[in-house]
Amino acid sequence: MADPNSRLPLSRQSVLEAHELIKPHIHFTPVLTSRMIDDIASTPQSVEALKGTEWEGREPAKPKVRLWFKCENLQRVGAFKVRGAFHALKRLEEEEGRKAGRDGKEVGFEKGGWREMGVVTHSSGNHAQALALAAREFNIPAHIVMPTISTPSKIAATKGYGAHVRFSGSTSVEREAMVDEVIKETGAKLVPPYDHPDIIAGQGTMGLELQEQVRGLQRERKAERGQEEREKEEEEGLNAIIAPCGGGGMLSGIALSCASTGILVFGAEPSFQGADDGRRGFAQGSRIERVTTLTIADGLRTPVGQIPWSIMFERRLVRAMFGVTEEQIRMAMRLVLERLKVVVEPSACVGLAVVLFHEGFRGMVEREAGGGGWHLGVVLSGGNVGVGRIGELFG
Amino acid sequence: MADPNSRLPLSRQSVLEAHELIKPHIHFTPVLTSRMIDDIASTPQSVEALKGTEWEGREPAKPKVRLWFKCENLQRVGAFKVRGAFHALKRLEEEEGRKAGRDGKEVGFEKGGWREMGVVTHSSGNHAQALALAAREFNIPAHIVMPTISTPSKIAATKGYGAHVRFSGSTSVEREAMVDEVIKETGAKLVPPYDHPDIIAGQGTMGLELQEQVRGLQRERKAERGQEEREKEEEEGLNAIIAPCGGGGMLSGIALSCASTGILVFGAEPSFQGADDGRRGFAQGSRIERVTTLTIADGLRTPVGQIPWSIMFERRLVRAMFGVTEEQIRMAMRLVLERLKVVVEPSACVGLAVVLFHEGFRGMVEREAGGGGWHLGVVLSGGNVGVGRIGELFG
Repeated sequence: MADPNSRLPLSRQSVLEAHELIKPHIHFTPVLTSRMIDDIASTPQSVEALKGTEWEGREPAKPKVRLWFKCENLQRVGAFKVRGAFHALKRLEEEEGRKAGRDGKEVGFEKGGWREMGVVTHSSGNHAQALALAAREFNIPAHIVMPTISTPSKIAATKGYGAHVRFSGSTSVEREAMVDEVIKETGAKLVPPYDHPDIIAGQGTMGLELQEQVRGLQRERKAERGQEEREKEEEEGLNAIIAPCGGGGMLSGIALSCASTGILVFGAEPSFQGADDGRRGFAQGSRIERVTTLTIADGLRTPVGQIPWSIMFERRLVRAMFGVTEEQIRMAMRLVLERLKVVVEPSACVGLAVVLFHEGFRGMVEREAGGGGWHLGVVLSGGNVGVGRIGELFG
Repeated sequence: MADPNSRLPLSRQSVLEAHELIKPHIHFTPVLTSRMIDDIASTPQSVEALKGTEWEGREPAKPKVRLWFKCENLQRVGAFKVRGAFHALKRLEEEEGRKAGRDGKEVGFEKGGWREMGVVTHSSGNHAQALALAAREFNIPAHIVMPTISTPSKIAATKGYGAHVRFSGSTSVEREAMVDEVIKETGAKLVPPYDHPDIIAGQGTMGLELQEQVRGLQRERKAERGQEEREKEEEEGLNAIIAPCGGGGMLSGIALSCASTGILVFGAEPSFQGADDGRRGFAQGSRIERVTTLTIADGLRTPVGQIPWSIMFERRLVRAMFGVTEEQIRMAMRLVLERLKVVVEPSACVGLAVVLFHEGFRGMVEREAGGGGWHLGVVLSGGNVGVGRIGELFG
């Protein structure tokens, strides 16, 4: 894959450039709103709910929020991951063009070129399907290393996009060994799931869309109201965005997309079995490199990667990280399914769970937002969950 | 409510006028597509699947379809019903303005006017919540008669919109008697769920949006492709729309929105316990007035109403009706949840079930569409289903 250092340091401009490159390949996913969820989120939690927490005995916060849900569950392959995958392939294409001394020109198939060797990654989740799809559209081979224990439906879906699936043991050592083997055999380029600048800039593009869409929707709604009401309400755009954090590719990309805009960025994680490594890393001032957790938010079981960490923490582009419980994730998921009427996987719901249930976050919004409240972007990152799993979670 | 005869016969123009009136109150719901669902729908059914049907032994049809899903599950209150409800109230407002000799002027609250008396309906489903919401926005009382056995969550939701809920027995005789009682007591205007021109014209507005959105999306996609490919593919717009049919308010409204456009309109029904009264009525040449069924498509348990019937059958604005089994509805629902990633109730899935599984429909598409295939609008009418129910259906 393209040299990670060639495009560092990343900036908002990197994300804008990525967006231009991938636009023809991705969906411009809709932004949804729900007055009912806004009302629930703007209602103080019960005194009961705070029992046993560090906020026990205090008066519950009264934040006022209007939520704008970015529906990446409606993205191609059902998750934001296609953004990074397409961007990575676009950059590989560009790089080969440069090497061949034909800057800016289309480069077709060349013997021994990357199009012949293809790409490789290890993933049992959304990145696998995203890379498989992107490779198919570029007409190049994709090798996906999946743990033998992956669910049959995910293996079938990845094969369905035409990828060559290779099986490995489930530890990261075993998976990486298999990737090395594939690279040795095929010469394929590694496209990692999050810890690479091209992936990060690609995922960040959703932040640009969300910013633009919210301004557009706010203007439409103002135009529909009377003049009098219009004058009461002058603010425009988002105050903040909250997004899930696993490896941190998406969160750091969004943070870049918001750099110098005044929009604050927050990360959300499951706290079960220490999956909130980002939050704990922020607290101790250094990255936590290893996590073993079986949180229901299965897309967020990985620790934050090195480059995402440098953007989120060292460059201070993420303001704070928050952890939520499994039950809070489940309740948020139920609300999205039943009220917003879109299908989301548990990982997609941690941002809303923070908004609804994390008293520390809620108190901060109350303090910082003042009477007008916050316009808050909430990223719904993916929707790859079967009806059987929904039944298990809520049966 | 406004005299049903004042706005008959209904036309495409009636629907256009309704759209202008209700636009500020409703969501312009998105249209989604899925290449994977298109591929499944365009793959011939197995010989196995046709066993035991009238197509047994024949070669399965090879229709080619591109599907455009109109997501009324993302409409306010989670279903298309708000379109008709808002339109009915807009017309009541207008009528009062005319009576008061003030055509075209806003009429506020008047003692003894309809705003004081409010509106009444009987419904245990989406119409109840839709009318309750519309009445709240018009700041008038809504009386909703619900059977005592209604699910607590639906009663709570209706009350949540500020409606006065009155309980009755569950037969239509008992419900109508209670409605009469409410009218006698309060002077409220009856807003029926489907058998009224204002309701029909209101529901039809989604047909206008769908026509416009598909043309817009097709143009966008063409612009993204190269010139060469653009020339290969010149068709634009929809060839047909398929929509669920219960009382027929929505289906007949959509049929009006397509009148003289060349777009064919089809109706879809569950066939369980005779719920396909529309299809059977088309076959015998007269409306079937009574149905008792417990199909999982609970929004489609009612027989087609008189005015919808006159539009669908007597005016020949609906080309044909198709019935599907409970299992086919469930499979279509699973596909929408898992592939399109939106939450739909069973009633919303009968149109897709016909496209996927009704060999008569599929054979017709193959014969009539020719090599280019059809651009087919599929209405997803609502998404009011709890996660518990999803668990029951797929557990």
